[in-house]
Amino acid sequence: MRFYDRQDLEFQLWDVAGLDRVLDGSELDREAVTGILDTADQIATDHFLPPARFLDENEPRFVDGHAVLPDGARTAVRAHVDAGFIAAGLKPDHGGMGLPETVHQAAAFIFSAANVGLGGYAMLTVGAARLIESFGSDRQKRDYLEPMAAGRFFGTMCLSEPQAGSSLSDITTRAEPLGDGRYRITGRKMWISGGDQDITENIVHMVLAKIPGGPPGVKGISLFIVPRARLDGSGNDVTLAGLNHKMGFRATTNCALNFGDNGDCVGELLGEEHKGLAYMFQMMNEARIGVGMGATALGQAGYQASLDYARERPQGRAPGGKDATAPQIPIIEHADIRRLLLAQKAAVEPALALALHCAMLVDQHRMGDAGAAVQLDMLTPVAKSWPSEFCLEANKHAIQVLGGAGYTRDYPVERLYRDNRLNPIHEGTHGIQGLDLLGRKVLMGGGAGFHALAAAIRADIPAAGSEFSESLSNRLERLERVTLSLAGAIGADTDRGLANATLYLDLFGHVVMGWMWLRIVAAADRAAARDGDSDFLRGKRQAARYFYARELARCDGWADILQANDLSAHDMAPGWF
Amino acid sequence: MRFYDRQDLEFQLWDVAGLDRVLDGSELDREAVTGILDTADQIATDHFLPPARFLDENEPRFVDGHAVLPDGARTAVRAHVDAGFIAAGLKPDHGGMGLPETVHQAAAFIFSAANVGLGGYAMLTVGAARLIESFGSDRQKRDYLEPMAAGRFFGTMCLSEPQAGSSLSDITTRAEPLGDGRYRITGRKMWISGGDQDITENIVHMVLAKIPGGPPGVKGISLFIVPRARLDGSGNDVTLAGLNHKMGFRATTNCALNFGDNGDCVGELLGEEHKGLAYMFQMMNEARIGVGMGATALGQAGYQASLDYARERPQGRAPGGKDATAPQIPIIEHADIRRLLLAQKAAVEPALALALHCAMLVDQHRMGDAGAAVQLDMLTPVAKSWPSEFCLEANKHAIQVLGGAGYTRDYPVERLYRDNRLNPIHEGTHGIQGLDLLGRKVLMGGGAGFHALAAAIRADIPAAGSEFSESLSNRLERLERVTLSLAGAIGADTDRGLANATLYLDLFGHVVMGWMWLRIVAAADRAAARDGDSDFLRGKRQAARYFYARELARCDGWADILQANDLSAHDMAPGWF
Repeated sequence: MRFYDRQDLEFQLWDVAGLDRVLDGSELDREAVTGILDTADQIATDHFLPPARFLDENEPRFVDGHAVLPDGARTAVRAHVDAGFIAAGLKPDHGGMGLPETVHQAAAFIFSAANVGLGGYAMLTVGAARLIESFGSDRQKRDYLEPMAAGRFFGTMCLSEPQAGSSLSDITTRAEPLGDGRYRITGRKMWISGGDQDITENIVHMVLAKIPGGPPGVKGISLFIVPRARLDGSGNDVTLAGLNHKMGFRATTNCALNFGDNGDCVGELLGEEHKGLAYMFQMMNEARIGVGMGATALGQAGYQASLDYARERPQGRAPGGKDATAPQIPIIEHADIRRLLLAQKAAVEPALALALHCAMLVDQHRMGDAGAAVQLDMLTPVAKSWPSEFCLEANKHAIQVLGGAGYTRDYPVERLYRDNRLNPIHEGTHGIQGLDLLGRKVLMGGGAGFHALAAAIRADIPAAGSEFSESLSNRLERLERVTLSLAGAIGADTDRGLANATLYLDLFGHVVMGWMWLRIVAAADRAAARDGDSDFLRGKRQAARYFYARELARCDGWADILQANDLSAHDMAPGWF
Repeated sequence: MRFYDRQDLEFQLWDVAGLDRVLDGSELDREAVTGILDTADQIATDHFLPPARFLDENEPRFVDGHAVLPDGARTAVRAHVDAGFIAAGLKPDHGGMGLPETVHQAAAFIFSAANVGLGGYAMLTVGAARLIESFGSDRQKRDYLEPMAAGRFFGTMCLSEPQAGSSLSDITTRAEPLGDGRYRITGRKMWISGGDQDITENIVHMVLAKIPGGPPGVKGISLFIVPRARLDGSGNDVTLAGLNHKMGFRATTNCALNFGDNGDCVGELLGEEHKGLAYMFQMMNEARIGVGMGATALGQAGYQASLDYARERPQGRAPGGKDATAPQIPIIEHADIRRLLLAQKAAVEPALALALHCAMLVDQHRMGDAGAAVQLDMLTPVAKSWPSEFCLEANKHAIQVLGGAGYTRDYPVERLYRDNRLNPIHEGTHGIQGLDLLGRKVLMGGGAGFHALAAAIRADIPAAGSEFSESLSNRLERLERVTLSLAGAIGADTDRGLANATLYLDLFGHVVMGWMWLRIVAAADRAAARDGDSDFLRGKRQAARYFYARELARCDGWADILQANDLSAHDMAPGWF
């Protein structure tokens, strides 16, 4: 069973994203990258894909205070880690391999398409390890980063608490100085992915907590390294209070953790006091792009499964052909099935393009391009939220292609849909991403980041004009006008100005995806000029046509609502429901 | 936990649908109807709601060739049936109670909101029993209909086969005359809801099969009564080949059934030979409206659960208020949460209005109004498909309101979302409904049914004009122009003309829902004039505003695509994917 399209991934990497630009001057060449992706493909095919259904039907269990993963999970994750796919995301100094982020993310895409839940452990570990890479002392790097790079320790992010989910200013976990540079940690954390597991010998929790006497709200948050076991092997009073029983994404444990129930939990400060949230944003931003990539991979896996089915399943005849004695046709011959397939393709391919574009921005920033960081900052809410919303919709369509079969657990599409439903929730809900985009990113620096992004999009619109140029130009202009208008509304009244931030996020996201389709089509045209045209390239152009006709067109209605700043939801009094 | 809104149901029945019109001249009065709904409420609350999670987590098992339902299912369904809620849907002559369909459907709504899977058995039994009521002999009514009315036998509809899901012309189940009026049945049926269970002493399968020598395709289909056990109690060679393991809707068994594996399955013809599909359309149409009602009930249950949560869960502060020491506010105070709630309300309330309107049309038709049947025919695809699509979307929003909690099985919203995902698939997929509407219903009789419906909508638009009149008028005109244009396209090329039938269905459905909101608002205005205004009535008007601003507005973009008959999906060659 094909769970992703390798030809498309290669096309996206080399022709659309232009990975060559990053490899120039590095030790890697195209052949080496191909080898890395071959390895990812093989491990994903051999270890991640086969247990996917079993791991869904047999969720992790709470046994004697510990999370016990079902058979197959441990072996699969070890194969993944032992092949170096955590080290791949880390710098060379402390055991990392220093791969370009774009290559690292392309491999992550393959793993997530095969089994998103198993891929979660490495994603979190890389993110936590990078925090130590960025802000830790040399000793902390030796003690924690190196075993993480080697896959002996995994990492987590401990932000939410039972009373503080989206509202981090309300966390109450405390960190009291012990006088020797260490801190006593006391508090309860909720929704901790990978918070306990039986794969690694230790878990490094990255914990947000408040040092008594600090400023209130987010300004008093510091970041602590709190290992499950101390480095001498003794326990550290981190207890698993319970496992959450999820709708999907079950191979990743999700935990309620208690720190210091017995007053004996010790952590160490990472970096400086009261800068915890700023540090944690590094991991959150990476995780947000990772969530978008995971959502994209789930969309891709559903697309492939439904495409296979549509090519093989005979059913019915064309509306024009009513001869009941003629053989049934494969359902891909029905226009409405092609619509369901094309809607998926039109969503998952630009989503992958954006995820890889973001990874390229990380690489370009590492190479000294300051503008890349600005653009990445602007695109992060979109990279997280758009695939979470629209590749979930793609998974819905995948089920529909299979009909009744798609509603059974005999096929993967219903599981992919359940897995993907997590993505609009975690790492900042869809609504939070909208507030982050409209309430912060767009307004920052007098709109400098927004204008830079708009300029980058415009630079990709061919002056000579293509089939799509005018349409994208118009929508970009609409977005600019809407942005200006909402900025004014926010200035007048924050609450009312931000009331439609989520819809703004969708509008912004669709324009960005229109941009991605433009880039994909430009790459297809270059490839056709170079190697001749092909069905593969024709499919890109037709999917872009579909996206522009059916999806980008939605921008007009959204822009109307936003330009008028319709307050029908804002003005609904709670008592009227 | 509130799983539906009784005040809204009463308002919808009396003020919007005008149930009084049906009760005039019947033995029922408002007090009696209230008593029936009280009984439904109590049984649903006591028996249907409590085991909902358990029945989801413990699906029916295949044991020794039979389906075994988990504890609680049998008791609950018996309570439902013993209270007369199957008899309620049948005529008085053979054990039925002859309730107005509108009252019967209002009760069904309550049961489905509590537990849609358990409600499925009665829905199917009523539909099967009505086939016998309509087309059966007196003996068949005594032998099958009466025990069904009493709840001793349940019914099923056996249409699909492994090789023939949507394409009924391809069924191969055979019925060979035995010479004594009986037929030997041989074949395999798939996706049979309630196909086996351990609740009733017998199951009456309504089986589509072909008599050898008949015409090919659907014209050769006849309908047979095939009991699981013969009336003397001996077996009838109907074997349970397997149970389907579904994503949701698990309290209703879903079966693969083999008829006559041992050559000893006997059935009796219902009505005349070769008229089976026409007969079965009675049950299919009822089931389609029933599916829409079930989808609506699931949407309603999710709306109520998320509304309760939003009122109780404190989190964060208003965007304008950044004082971290102020207490957190209930999340319903956040505009984006109100949007998620209002989007649900805006979908589930007109969906209920349409379901009850359709039930009223059934009652009016029974009272001799021929026009009611024409309108019902036209509205059936919408009544089935709109709630299946947009109340599923509502369930998605319900999860989002709860955030991480909504993704766990500790709350009902993720289950409701899984349950509802079935509805766009069964009883004719979303795509099939579009073809039925645009390819048949709209074109029939030179568009007579379509014009009659448009006239009915127009008659409800107040001449003096309300806040919504112009907007609905414009969209209705757009729909008329699009319809004319597509009718021309179909005439020129069936395949291309029908390529966007699903989008047409959505456009048509939104206009109908705009109509329903207009009726709800008119009823609210009448109620306010009569009893004074209230928060309940203000909420109706505000939800209508939201629907018109955010949903009805989508009609314009859809109409543009349809008017141009965009063929981007149609023209995608299978080889280009």
